[in-house]
Formats: sequence, C-alpha cells, structure tokens
Amino acid sequence: MRIGVLGTGMVGNAIGTALVRAGHRVMMGSRTRDNEKAVAWVAAAGAGALQGSYSDAAAFGELLFNCTAGGASHSVLVAAGRENLAGKVLVDVANPLDFSQGFPPSLAVCNTDSLGEQLQRAFPELRVVKALNTVNCNVMVNPSLLPGDHDLFICGNEPTAKEEVSRLLVEAFGWRRENLIDLGDITMARGTEMLLPIWVRLWAKLGTPNFNLHVVVGPPPAV
Amino acid sequence: MRIGVLGTGMVGNAIGTALVRAGHRVMMGSRTRDNEKAVAWVAAAGAGALQGSYSDAAAFGELLFNCTAGGASHSVLVAAGRENLAGKVLVDVANPLDFSQGFPPSLAVCNTDSLGEQLQRAFPELRVVKALNTVNCNVMVNPSLLPGDHDLFICGNEPTAKEEVSRLLVEAFGWRRENLIDLGDITMARGTEMLLPIWVRLWAKLGTPNFNLHVVVGPPPAV
Repeated sequence: MRIGVLGTGMVGNAIGTALVRAGHRVMMGSRTRDNEKAVAWVAAAGAGALQGSYSDAAAFGELLFNCTAGGASHSVLVAAGRENLAGKVLVDVANPLDFSQGFPPSLAVCNTDSLGEQLQRAFPELRVVKALNTVNCNVMVNPSLLPGDHDLFICGNEPTAKEEVSRLLVEAFGWRRENLIDLGDITMARGTEMLLPIWVRLWAKLGTPNFNLHVVVGPPPAV
Repeated sequence: MRIGVLGTGMVGNAIGTALVRAGHRVMMGSRTRDNEKAVAWVAAAGAGALQGSYSDAAAFGELLFNCTAGGASHSVLVAAGRENLAGKVLVDVANPLDFSQGFPPSLAVCNTDSLGEQLQRAFPELRVVKALNTVNCNVMVNPSLLPGDHDLFICGNEPTAKEEVSRLLVEAFGWRRENLIDLGDITMARGTEMLLPIWVRLWAKLGTPNFNLHVVVGPPPAV
C-alpha cells in the first residue's frame, strides 16, 4: 500500500525502511521538500522510497505513521493538512517526552490525558492508533531481535483501524499476532506513554535500548 | 526478625501471613488497637502474629511494610510516630491511586514526583524502599504462581536498605534474586507507580490480577 511516514529521525527511518522492504511504497515527509535526511533515506532505501513535505506525504499515504517528536506532532499534523488526513489511520508512535529539565525526561502530558488523546481530539478526521511507542526503533521493526515472547500494546477508538495496523505489524514488521495486546480505546495511550519513565531508566541500567516487556499471566484467583 | 505491617487490607494480610509462615514475628498495625480485621488476621495467621495500633506496630518492627492506601500513607506514618520510625527500613508497597473520578483511577501524584519520594521527604528518618507495588498481593508473596521469569522493580536511596529488602523478598516470599531489578534511587518510584494505569487496564482485560511483567533483553546495538 501507499504509506506516509511523518518524520526523518531514527524512528521514521527504521519504519520507512522496513515498510519499503515489505513491498510498500513509502513517502517520508518533513518540514520542507528535499530535506537532507529524507533525500539520504530515499537513496538508501531504494525502489519504493519517496520523499516530500509533510503535506505531500500525508496526501500520498493511505495510512500514516507519526514518527515525529511528541512536542512537534500537533504542528506537523497541521502542516500535513486536514484535507490530507481525512479518514486515514494514523499510527502514533510518538511520546510526549519533555527534556526541558534535562535527563531523565518527564512527560509533557500524562495521567488524565495523553498525546494520543490530544491528537485524536485535535484531528477527529484521523483514526488514531497508538502503537510501537513502548519499544526502541530496532525492536519496532524487528521483534525477533529479542528472544521469546514480548508484547506490543496498541489502543485506539476504532477496531477496524486497529485491525489494519495489527496486520501491518505482523506482515511488515514480523510481530506475532499473539504478542499484540489491544488495551482498548485511545484513552489507554495514557498507560502506554506512562511506561516511558521506567523505559528510560531500564535503558540506562541495561546499557541497551533493545529490550521489551512481556506480560506473564498466571491462573485466575480461586473464588 | 520483628516486622511491623501497617494496614489491615488484602495487601497487609497477604504480606503479614507470608512473613509469619517464613518464621518472622509480625505485628499488624491499624488506626486503633483490636481492629476487627487485625484480630481476625492474628487468629488465622497463628503463632508469631500480633496486632496493635500503628504506633505499636512501628515500635515493634525492626523493619516496616507500608500496606496502606496511598492517600492514607502520610497520616498513618504520622500516627506511627517519628520516634518509632527512626533508622528503620520502610518497604513502601502503596500506590497513589485516586478513585475520586471513578474507575479507572488516576494517580494523585506522578511524573515529577511520587508517593515514594513524598514519604521519604516527609520522613527522612526512614529508609524508604519502594517495592512490590507493581504486582497483586497474590503474586507479591508467591511469585511462583506465575510461570517462568517475571520481574520485581525496587528502588530507594540506600543500597544497604535495598539489600535487606531483597533478602527478605527472596527468603520469605520466594522471589528469584535475578528477577529483582534495582532501578536506582527513590525518584524511580515515579516509574514504578506510573505502571499502575496500564496494570489496572491489563487486570480488566486479562480477567485476573495474577500477572506481572518480564523485561526481555536482546543484544546491545551494533556500533
């Protein structure tokens, strides 16, 4: 399918490359056309890789990935243009990390709201699916990098949008269907974004960003 | 050893019972002496189980467990009496859940502060170790209820206090040493308390509180 990837950082790069390899046509969008990083990505990713403005990429894609920094996501979607977003699924990979007080970051929004909810409210024409924001970009597109079972949390208001994203996660990125945990509607973006403080600390402690969480389930309690 | 358990709910009950079974003498503390639930617990738990006021339990214990609701923890420690807390390890099992807007709860404090930090600041005479707050009480005292590896996050300012608590977790509750993840100082209570929103949602989704997270680690990134 045609996919628009908003953002030229490590996350956009990894996701765009994996999608091209899986046979999709991908346009990487950035603030201006012919962005240096986007042009370099097109050259590296090969046939099927395109680049353009946020608006170009949003118009091109049948499905969109938000791979921008959380603090920039709203303005990027404004730049993408509401007419180019209408009815489309947006996979929101961003986290509202606030580095203004240094490391470790806090969250710019949490607890009773989330970035995922903010974007869904501000752009009701989008079908926002929060996913992939709880793992590093290496793991996002190559879950077999880690041994055994580990889980990806997804949420969003529309079951059909979540199913479309789940299929892509399985077919393009290699996630096992049984490791996708649908938490419910977009309000659960609070729960997944609030994993970031412990994620950041584990990253520092483990010395690698290549890790993930597995939900280990036992028997139901005796009545 | 002599251990004071503050709180008469399911958590205090489970922890107190497991500690008695492991051979410790345990006093369950509540707002008033001869609290009905504490008296019932003493009868059920058998030799080694005692009950009294918060102050009695704090004075009795060489080590203390905070098993009260997060919103009550500060006033419980005031009632316990600073003179009874001085120099002692407090295992802070509580979470700052706020049910004032119904279910699911939000957190009364998070992001740039936490209940664990608030208690450590308010009671500098205590050596607060945040632990066990990310699992249900069944799992706290019986980790083998769940299959395979799953992890417990602990944090606190004092390595010796964390080591004392870790030994108790291993010897009295059966946690594997390799499944205890020391995240660092008490500021990491933010990270573990912020797991609660997703924990609560997983509980509803899985239909059982008997689950936990396992950190699955892959190779370090290629340079």
